[in-house]
Amino acid sequence: MILTNSTGLAGVVAGETAISTVGKQGVGLTYRGYTIEDLAEHSTFEEVACLLIHGELPTPAERDQFLAKRIAQQRLSDEMMSFLEQLPDTSHPMDVLRSGTSLLGCWEPEHSIDQQQRIAARLLAVFPSMICYWYRFVNDRFRIEIESEQTTVAGHFLQLLHSGAPSEVDRRALDVALILYAEHEFNASTFAARVTASTGSDLYSAICTGIGTLRGPLHGGANEASMKLISNFTDPEQAEQGVLRKLARREKIMGFGHRVYKSTDPRSEIMKRWALTLCKQTRQLKTYAVAERIETVMQREKGLFPNLDFYSAVAFHCLGIPTALFTPLFVMARTAGWSAHVFEQRSNNRLIRPTANYIGPSQRPLVRPHQRT
Amino acid sequence: MILTNSTGLAGVVAGETAISTVGKQGVGLTYRGYTIEDLAEHSTFEEVACLLIHGELPTPAERDQFLAKRIAQQRLSDEMMSFLEQLPDTSHPMDVLRSGTSLLGCWEPEHSIDQQQRIAARLLAVFPSMICYWYRFVNDRFRIEIESEQTTVAGHFLQLLHSGAPSEVDRRALDVALILYAEHEFNASTFAARVTASTGSDLYSAICTGIGTLRGPLHGGANEASMKLISNFTDPEQAEQGVLRKLARREKIMGFGHRVYKSTDPRSEIMKRWALTLCKQTRQLKTYAVAERIETVMQREKGLFPNLDFYSAVAFHCLGIPTALFTPLFVMARTAGWSAHVFEQRSNNRLIRPTANYIGPSQRPLVRPHQRT
Repeated sequence: MILTNSTGLAGVVAGETAISTVGKQGVGLTYRGYTIEDLAEHSTFEEVACLLIHGELPTPAERDQFLAKRIAQQRLSDEMMSFLEQLPDTSHPMDVLRSGTSLLGCWEPEHSIDQQQRIAARLLAVFPSMICYWYRFVNDRFRIEIESEQTTVAGHFLQLLHSGAPSEVDRRALDVALILYAEHEFNASTFAARVTASTGSDLYSAICTGIGTLRGPLHGGANEASMKLISNFTDPEQAEQGVLRKLARREKIMGFGHRVYKSTDPRSEIMKRWALTLCKQTRQLKTYAVAERIETVMQREKGLFPNLDFYSAVAFHCLGIPTALFTPLFVMARTAGWSAHVFEQRSNNRLIRPTANYIGPSQRPLVRPHQRT
Repeated sequence: MILTNSTGLAGVVAGETAISTVGKQGVGLTYRGYTIEDLAEHSTFEEVACLLIHGELPTPAERDQFLAKRIAQQRLSDEMMSFLEQLPDTSHPMDVLRSGTSLLGCWEPEHSIDQQQRIAARLLAVFPSMICYWYRFVNDRFRIEIESEQTTVAGHFLQLLHSGAPSEVDRRALDVALILYAEHEFNASTFAARVTASTGSDLYSAICTGIGTLRGPLHGGANEASMKLISNFTDPEQAEQGVLRKLARREKIMGFGHRVYKSTDPRSEIMKRWALTLCKQTRQLKTYAVAERIETVMQREKGLFPNLDFYSAVAFHCLGIPTALFTPLFVMARTAGWSAHVFEQRSNNRLIRPTANYIGPSQRPLVRPHQRT
């Protein structure tokens, strides 16, 4: 038996991966050897999805084929639309995606491992349609058209949400956010998806596990919590006082610090620049100033840096994206990483089954019901 | 960093638990300090569910209250029945349960941790109704009545499946199987459910993770695979030859051996006796003889012992349960253990986030699309 004295498996190597490096020596992020800075500057989310899933960046021909397939696979069946319309208005958007994924597993099951890449592409294509169709139906009582002239996930999502083609700046800002959210090694949702895959289960089950795990406030929910925090304040001075009060009450401030990164989150610096561009464009520089002041206070008081979730929240807000859809956007991106990890787990599988340290009662005789108190 | 050289986290302590001990020194199973032999002999599944979830066996009054609540919570809403009827006939029964659980999370969400015990009881009560309603609708085009005079999960399931009250022997045989399947420490599905819970996600998400993880042939699917194997043979001699041929072809024989138990699975011995009782009663002693011969061959040729799944398959078969419902029965039982582990994780939570050993390409410059080949 290999004993660990670590809670939450912090720092415990749970397996091998060729997909990404997160914070080697506490800094930096690479996907398949490419730095996140290069990918965010010179690549697109669809190229990154190909890179993660297939191992290499696509040639222009492969990329065009991927984009054409994406358009073909973004459709919602009549059954899916009917199901989405029947969900309660009060449903949590992550529950909608988890249920939609689970049902897709009934309607379009994975019969063999040969289908895994097709199903991953289908999920990447269908999620924007699924969440926007449900959201607009519930909020506007409006059945949106799922067809759009957009070739990318970012463009398609923004067009369905706003019923109009996005500007290229807006589309590219979301595209970069999707690149940054696409993959992050053995984070909780990805690791849980690998455990599911390790029993030989199907891809839909693994993605349901990913969505359900990402749903928690300590993981994907952090960008929504960040936005709620920022929205509390109308100017930097008020933000400073508010955050200081929260810290004095020992409240957790979401969107700061990271289990693996020790000095900075390389994704945050990229997203912060996009947040500034979008705040300028939409004349919400006060929101940006509030966010920056919160960053300053957290650095000064706690030595903590913002992670990706913090400035993503500002950027998404400027893009007119409702806060409730922030974590679903994370799903749309991370489905690329989850799928790549499931394929990797399958390619060299061993059941993931750890053991536990027992701290319960010693062996005891059974007391018959009438003697129990 | 704590390095491990273990694949699949085998032997790695991933946390603490007070719920069960599996194979300390390679043998034995206890739930909250009680041996599985005592529980299978003197207790009921409902008492065991209380024990796992609340930490202690119920008094007679508490047990009666639990049974009354069970009956009240076994109902299916009109929306749930309509949803089950719309599923494709070809759906995998585990996908039906995963989707039903996910939808219940939309219809009856967990708003706060105070609701966790009520929701666990609801899931334990509703699963037999859910799977039997769907199964009978798909196979018999018949809308069964969900009400029954049965107070227990085992009785309710058998009555809905067969449209008639089960004999006490049949009911008790299934009751014991549910006790044996109820909990098993950090097995893959339970561990995955704890990872989901560790992000602060809701109970439905954690149970969806459990179901999706149990679905795989290396975990819950093993009892179905065992039955398919046994059904191939009409007598022991044919079984011996058939298994020898499979071993010669290096095919995996499901239902044998275990990651943690080293010499025997304590649950298998209990289930084997029940399988014999049921085979005698239904005059299927040939099936029993085939199973026993496979056990002998596996012991002699591979030194492997049968695990719980092997003789459960024989017992379920004698109870007239279709093979496709074997893993769903596992869900009905293990929901008690999953829930107990989620509550335990929540009571002293730390995000479960391991790390990985990187074996991918070194850092490399980004090649622009037209230069890629």
